[in-house]
Amino acid sequence: MFEKIAHIGVAVKDIKASTKLFRKLFGKAPDHTESLPEYKVHTVMFEIGHSSIELTEATDAESPIARFIEKRGEGVHHVSFVVDDIEKEIARLKQQGFQMIDDKPRLGADNYYVAFLHPKSTNGVLVEISQKKA
Amino acid sequence: MFEKIAHIGVAVKDIKASTKLFRKLFGKAPDHTESLPEYKVHTVMFEIGHSSIELTEATDAESPIARFIEKRGEGVHHVSFVVDDIEKEIARLKQQGFQMIDDKPRLGADNYYVAFLHPKSTNGVLVEISQKKA
Repeated sequence: MFEKIAHIGVAVKDIKASTKLFRKLFGKAPDHTESLPEYKVHTVMFEIGHSSIELTEATDAESPIARFIEKRGEGVHHVSFVVDDIEKEIARLKQQGFQMIDDKPRLGADNYYVAFLHPKSTNGVLVEISQKKA
Repeated sequence: MFEKIAHIGVAVKDIKASTKLFRKLFGKAPDHTESLPEYKVHTVMFEIGHSSIELTEATDAESPIARFIEKRGEGVHHVSFVVDDIEKEIARLKQQGFQMIDDKPRLGADNYYVAFLHPKSTNGVLVEISQKKA
């Protein structure tokens, strides 16, 4: 089951400048900062209600975030949803004909297991499903 | 104050096909359907937690949604936030240097007053603020 929007991932070129900008936009300080060397990104989260906005800067030109910005410019990169049972959802989605980028959950930011769907099967929206690590 | 994500607006070419697709993705029926002739769009909302995904199809080639799809393809078009006082937020954001597309709130989908910020001032993200009509 899809329970809520976990976060909206925004690809940015300069996370320091963007953190300043979104701090002014939301009128509040960020809630969480994390570097994920295995994904070659720095992330900054702003909680808004029960969801977050996740700013993501590439730390390497080969990172998918860097390639996204090169191709499309800064902006919304993905939408992440919290699901109650990620393994069950992966199986259900595959059965419904969706193309998974990740057949198995992997550990992402903020201690969540995550799996991406291919945006070609979801009208151009890069969808991530996620479940907090028990 | 930014209270929560109201919805994520997704630009689609064929709202019937996309409604079927997102119904399969979320494993649930849509919650709300609305046509807005003044904006030349049809919309379908899927509530997920306290927020929604809003599918939007243009009914006219001159609609901003049609132009968006022509330029960038289908995908996330805007992110809408619920604020507690939209007039106060417009004044605060302008004072902070953000460029507003709408200087005054106008009536949008689902009986919400809305105002858009220019994506050039928000890292490529088209941000909408909204407040339910009293």
